[in-house]
Amino acid sequence: MKAPIDFYFDFSSPYSYIANEWIDALAARHGRTVRRQAILLGVTFTAAELKSPVSYPIKRDYSLRDFQRSARFERVPYVPPETFPIPTQNAARVFWWLKETLGETAAAGWTRAGFRAFFTRGVLLNDATALKALAADAGLDADAAERAWSDPVWKDRLKRANDEAIAAGVFGAPFFVIDGEPFWGNDRKAQIEQWLTSPF
Amino acid sequence: MKAPIDFYFDFSSPYSYIANEWIDALAARHGRTVRRQAILLGVTFTAAELKSPVSYPIKRDYSLRDFQRSARFERVPYVPPETFPIPTQNAARVFWWLKETLGETAAAGWTRAGFRAFFTRGVLLNDATALKALAADAGLDADAAERAWSDPVWKDRLKRANDEAIAAGVFGAPFFVIDGEPFWGNDRKAQIEQWLTSPF
Repeated sequence: MKAPIDFYFDFSSPYSYIANEWIDALAARHGRTVRRQAILLGVTFTAAELKSPVSYPIKRDYSLRDFQRSARFERVPYVPPETFPIPTQNAARVFWWLKETLGETAAAGWTRAGFRAFFTRGVLLNDATALKALAADAGLDADAAERAWSDPVWKDRLKRANDEAIAAGVFGAPFFVIDGEPFWGNDRKAQIEQWLTSPF
Repeated sequence: MKAPIDFYFDFSSPYSYIANEWIDALAARHGRTVRRQAILLGVTFTAAELKSPVSYPIKRDYSLRDFQRSARFERVPYVPPETFPIPTQNAARVFWWLKETLGETAAAGWTRAGFRAFFTRGVLLNDATALKALAADAGLDADAAERAWSDPVWKDRLKRANDEAIAAGVFGAPFFVIDGEPFWGNDRKAQIEQWLTSPF
């Protein structure tokens, strides 16, 4: 039995969204499953003394262009959100609530729904009304979702996820760990595929 | 006649070294030539308010590992230099001297020689004796090379190259510009190949 691929992401990370669209099929081709870990990139940036690439003016223009080009390259629909980046703690807490009460598949479905909502329709995941509507669209009990993101249990679970990510050496997203080998970035897809075929 | 590919690099950048090993063949497959631009990454980092990835402790360990893995992935020989990074202004001035007096081919030969010396044999390009020996090995007049890197003409030429790179939006290396489209990173190879086949 091969170990699952750990996949760390933030709901506001464009490269994480793109990777979320290809990681399951890639993992399945190599007999692996994916273990998703929703985190807050701001927390790992602070721990690593880093900042978002879009916080640097010169890098920002390139990054915004590269987000779109990288999405086209992977044939993933992408509409740049007008508000970006956004705080994603509520979406991440709903993720952990689903993951720990319903399991990986429910959490993966929510991940897909959240990413697609933000990066193809500009749905503001930090807006309570919009997030409840999204939860309902995704077949969840919207009121229960709201209770979950307000619940200290899931707030703490997300904090622990951030701490565990930092301890695992995560300093950006998407970040993958495969049998202990770390891969940072949507652009490590080819290396990941090669590694799963035969570590090099 | 298709425009050449502009390739900005720093002699101390591992990802630039790896890219230098594949860019010519890739360009040739698409009827393009490569126009190399030696720059100092420290200058563009300062302009863009960035720092080297290896200056962040948490990112450093990953980067050092990723340099080696990326080299293996591209089947490029790589031996991590014990002293890293190093100042590369003298190697870059020799580059500009060759490029402007002998042309692109001579400059490309020096680029290859400098990169391979540092990243496979740990030759310190910032050491005058080592750099002169490397120039002689590369078939150059070593004393003339030393005069070139001490000459205000070539110091100024490198400064202008840095200024032009910053004006062109370069904030890291390797950095490629193809018909106005910017690509940052050795890991943009697949996108570059696709772009040269058919812009997407």
